[in-house]
Amino acid sequence: MPLNVTQKLIKDHLVSGEMVPGEEVGLKIDQTLTQDATGTLVMLELEAMELDRAKTEASAQYVDHNLIQVDSKNPDDHLFLQSATRRFGLHYSQPGNGVSHPVHMQKLAKPGKTLLGSDSHTCANGCMGMLAMGAGGIDVAMAIAGEPFYVKMPKVWGIKLTGKLPEWVSAKDFILEILRRYDVKGGVGKVIEYFGPGVDTLSAMDRHVIANMGAELGATGTVFPSDKEIKRFLKEQDREDDWIELKADKGATYDIYEEIDLSEIEPLIAKPSSPGNVVPVSELTGTPIYQSYVGSSANPGYRDFAIAAEIVNGKHIAEGVSFDINPTSKQMLTDLVKESHVASLLQAGGRLHQAGCNGCIGMGQAPATGRNSLRTTPRNFPGRSGTREDSVFLCSPETAAASALTGKITDPRTLDMDYPKVKDPKKPTTDVNLLDEPLPPEEAKKVQLEKGPNIASIPKMDEMPDQLELPILLKMSDNISTDEILAGGARVLPFRSNLPEISKFTFEIIDDTYYDRGKSTVEKGGHAVVGGFNYGQGSSREHAALAPRYLGLRVALVKDFARIHWQNLVNFGVLPLTFVNEEDYDLLEQGDVLSLTDLRNKIRNGNEFSIEVKGKNQQINVSHALSARQIDIMIKGGIINWVKDRHSQK
Amino acid sequence: MPLNVTQKLIKDHLVSGEMVPGEEVGLKIDQTLTQDATGTLVMLELEAMELDRAKTEASAQYVDHNLIQVDSKNPDDHLFLQSATRRFGLHYSQPGNGVSHPVHMQKLAKPGKTLLGSDSHTCANGCMGMLAMGAGGIDVAMAIAGEPFYVKMPKVWGIKLTGKLPEWVSAKDFILEILRRYDVKGGVGKVIEYFGPGVDTLSAMDRHVIANMGAELGATGTVFPSDKEIKRFLKEQDREDDWIELKADKGATYDIYEEIDLSEIEPLIAKPSSPGNVVPVSELTGTPIYQSYVGSSANPGYRDFAIAAEIVNGKHIAEGVSFDINPTSKQMLTDLVKESHVASLLQAGGRLHQAGCNGCIGMGQAPATGRNSLRTTPRNFPGRSGTREDSVFLCSPETAAASALTGKITDPRTLDMDYPKVKDPKKPTTDVNLLDEPLPPEEAKKVQLEKGPNIASIPKMDEMPDQLELPILLKMSDNISTDEILAGGARVLPFRSNLPEISKFTFEIIDDTYYDRGKSTVEKGGHAVVGGFNYGQGSSREHAALAPRYLGLRVALVKDFARIHWQNLVNFGVLPLTFVNEEDYDLLEQGDVLSLTDLRNKIRNGNEFSIEVKGKNQQINVSHALSARQIDIMIKGGIINWVKDRHSQK
Repeated sequence: MPLNVTQKLIKDHLVSGEMVPGEEVGLKIDQTLTQDATGTLVMLELEAMELDRAKTEASAQYVDHNLIQVDSKNPDDHLFLQSATRRFGLHYSQPGNGVSHPVHMQKLAKPGKTLLGSDSHTCANGCMGMLAMGAGGIDVAMAIAGEPFYVKMPKVWGIKLTGKLPEWVSAKDFILEILRRYDVKGGVGKVIEYFGPGVDTLSAMDRHVIANMGAELGATGTVFPSDKEIKRFLKEQDREDDWIELKADKGATYDIYEEIDLSEIEPLIAKPSSPGNVVPVSELTGTPIYQSYVGSSANPGYRDFAIAAEIVNGKHIAEGVSFDINPTSKQMLTDLVKESHVASLLQAGGRLHQAGCNGCIGMGQAPATGRNSLRTTPRNFPGRSGTREDSVFLCSPETAAASALTGKITDPRTLDMDYPKVKDPKKPTTDVNLLDEPLPPEEAKKVQLEKGPNIASIPKMDEMPDQLELPILLKMSDNISTDEILAGGARVLPFRSNLPEISKFTFEIIDDTYYDRGKSTVEKGGHAVVGGFNYGQGSSREHAALAPRYLGLRVALVKDFARIHWQNLVNFGVLPLTFVNEEDYDLLEQGDVLSLTDLRNKIRNGNEFSIEVKGKNQQINVSHALSARQIDIMIKGGIINWVKDRHSQK
Repeated sequence: MPLNVTQKLIKDHLVSGEMVPGEEVGLKIDQTLTQDATGTLVMLELEAMELDRAKTEASAQYVDHNLIQVDSKNPDDHLFLQSATRRFGLHYSQPGNGVSHPVHMQKLAKPGKTLLGSDSHTCANGCMGMLAMGAGGIDVAMAIAGEPFYVKMPKVWGIKLTGKLPEWVSAKDFILEILRRYDVKGGVGKVIEYFGPGVDTLSAMDRHVIANMGAELGATGTVFPSDKEIKRFLKEQDREDDWIELKADKGATYDIYEEIDLSEIEPLIAKPSSPGNVVPVSELTGTPIYQSYVGSSANPGYRDFAIAAEIVNGKHIAEGVSFDINPTSKQMLTDLVKESHVASLLQAGGRLHQAGCNGCIGMGQAPATGRNSLRTTPRNFPGRSGTREDSVFLCSPETAAASALTGKITDPRTLDMDYPKVKDPKKPTTDVNLLDEPLPPEEAKKVQLEKGPNIASIPKMDEMPDQLELPILLKMSDNISTDEILAGGARVLPFRSNLPEISKFTFEIIDDTYYDRGKSTVEKGGHAVVGGFNYGQGSSREHAALAPRYLGLRVALVKDFARIHWQNLVNFGVLPLTFVNEEDYDLLEQGDVLSLTDLRNKIRNGNEFSIEVKGKNQQINVSHALSARQIDIMIKGGIINWVKDRHSQK
């Protein structure tokens, strides 16, 4: 049977399951990627698993999210990450080397491989003929430990590209067009696979832009073929040997099929505050701007900066505009310096920042209150810029540069100039140390983890007891988000490597006595919480499961769960139960004590069982949705114990 | 009578007083400089004075201290500053354009003029044959409003330079030698005037380095002649017409005379945590470093970066070292880019930051806990880096670059290479918009100040009471810096336009109970603090006087004061007193209550009086150094009240 590229990649890595859309498949993971915001916990998890050495072909830890170092916590995290990579045999990319996705593409990405990353834009490396997917930190820790990644088999959405992008229109406009058509849920459950003659007209980095923002469509991944252009790209990086050809078989089919003529795309812009809120730039012409921002993993290429530089070359940006230049890799920055583009950007009035994520994830360059910010970044969710009530627009580098010159949103086609021809450097500067090599195993074994005062190991978690008497410490309503369970933000995030400290914020927004009350149950066998519908919606942060578990949470009993939080509860050994009869929710009160007996047998022997409410003469029927593997994880007390056990049995 | 350069400058600007060392003189101010950390308050003060338009020849507002923009407060401040410069007829330098001192030197500095700046390193422009002095923001506001600046007539400390600096030794090593000899109080009450044939061997920017760190000696100013080298510098900036020659008359004399042979200077380094803690680099050889940091107003020149670039060119810095490059002006950065030095720094592993003060003032690049940071910055006071218990060393760019290569403190003379010859660019890139021009008066009158939600008016202050009972809330040791009184850094600076908020950080580093204890005294008549020698050294930030005043500080009783902080205390109505007998310091304890009676008469009727320590049967003889004008200011409760009064009397 002829296969498309996605099917080939999945077939080559299939460990368990059937390749039927919607069915769970287990996939072998060849490469992993972690960044600093999620990586510190991943490294602590590897420590807790007692991992000796990464079992992947290549795993890299990047430091790109938080480079500001306003106090010792941030640089202490960097040292910890570096020591962990040395201990576990990972690559390490120092702060200032650049954003994980383009650096990974330059240094490690290989056609035909799988890549799992604890960053939602990991999908960007789908541009290299890889199956590249974002996931939670513990999933990536498991992959580093050699475990498969489990995901629902996606539908493959084939998009045949014809034609060529017009002048003044680039890859960002194309992906904004897809978002305009299908909005931010359009890719859910699907891998988007591009093919056809139009693909030949897109450079590897153009494809990166398109694959990156597959995340904004909610797609499982985006896949491009590995063709001559990928060969050229790898050759430029002195990695020609890493190339293989990877194309769809003749006659391959797709679950969904579409054809798009690139020559019909026009300059587009996403209005505040959703990447799916897309209109033609021409509709907003004249809107005043405070900021024009070039960079991020959604426009990381040499070309993206060079075109902006050519547009402003010899001119001055409008007075009062903050023209922020955020390079994405130190290697590309070096080339942009050498080819005089950085000088053009500076002379025109640009503010040159360190290579990294920076303002894209709200670490600097926040816009002023009530002012419009034009960015080439992938997201404009409310407040993400750092300014609470922000007004962020997403666009191409062409539109950003044209608008910086005029001080207003400007369709770049209306500039009085020819479309600049941007030439790549003849030979990119590969002699920039973007990635430290893993230490040899004998040396690695000797490395001690460097834990600054704010870095604490994950405490050992006990197995699930067979008998539990759990007071209900909180009874909550519907739609409790992970922000309410454990807030993000500048007060809380600095403690992401310190479970005892970060746990102090648990449920603080709902009830600030929870921390003390929870902690007091730890020695007595723990406690339960009760919730309504859609419990745990929002951010995927694992701390929202790990922190309450640390404070003694054993059971969350709710009407239903948000998917990712449910997974996180399972991973950290909190039993997620739902009411068989939703009206039983009304029977329970804060302070009631749930009595669970013969628990291991009960969860093994079926999906439903009953719990007694002590002293109330009530039985509550509850249900769990655990697979056999997940029951095993639960009984072991969470996935860290489970992996440790598996490894010690080997 | 033959005059030296300092005397000529003072004589040309003398408005009141006698040119007798120690006597107060009033000086006409030609130019002013404000930066963002102090400038927001200055602009609020101008607004409070109902100023129509700046009365100086040139006044510039720079944005260099806080460029991080993690939320809307920082960019809102920038917009406020910009609107204020447009309203009051000032120059405006956008964030990212560079550090005030080198940019001012490039764009506005003129031989023969006076410059007053609300930044302690304003003295740097003494390199241009100017009398350049740091002062509190309110003094600068007064100068912008056309008022003279009052200062004690300094002694002139003439230093005749002979010889030429050896290879691998540069201006920073020279000023460290002066600090080694005379420590952080060596310049108090003096202007340091350099002359002699050795001056000819120093470029304008070398002189900037030396004049800049006159601040670390506590000097009132540093003065260089205006000679052919200054002419050359101004010509390069397309400002040849601004040049005049300014040299000491034949036979001019100095209050203090010294001769130094430049050829005898060796590479020096200041150990933690004082700029006066200087030893030869060779004494520390091999000490491991975490960070090497090039930049700041204490090494701002093209040469300073180019020499570092030449030293690391074609090599890689040691693994794990953070090699932080902080350009000081966008113009010089552009030239460093064009001349390939930036490429060399990046390829070797440098982290390139935006042009500005950055880590020098604790806004980013904090070192990891317990790790050594080597910096070309002017100061290493404890905690200034952002890391509470930091370990910061000060050195030349040569030493910083050599140490980055080895990962250890390294005497650059021991590198196996020839001393690189650094050539200036033939023609610097002057087509970089570093400074917006003032608006014409008619347009300026129409400008509204843009006040974001975090910008608050200065609360009204009461007059000085005649009777005071003041508990001593803190007893401190010698050399308390304004960083300890009110920290800079990322946590604190965002509130610089919001006194109620920023006051919460007052004395926090010394005693974090001070805020609550201080605030509780406000209604009861206030409190006092006691200190040792050199109280209030360091940064000129006036919040260090205004914030404790807001919390009830009425009297600071110390062994002696750093000049600028003393002035700030006077301006904000805190009575600065010194012990007549220094040993009385030992009699006082925290918690003692000082009783001051008939205070107005006492300070009017002489410089000495005695105060009672309640319940201890002790009398402490104290002294004040207030002029008649300052006594008037003190009784009115500070200079804002005093100016308001003057305006209402007109």
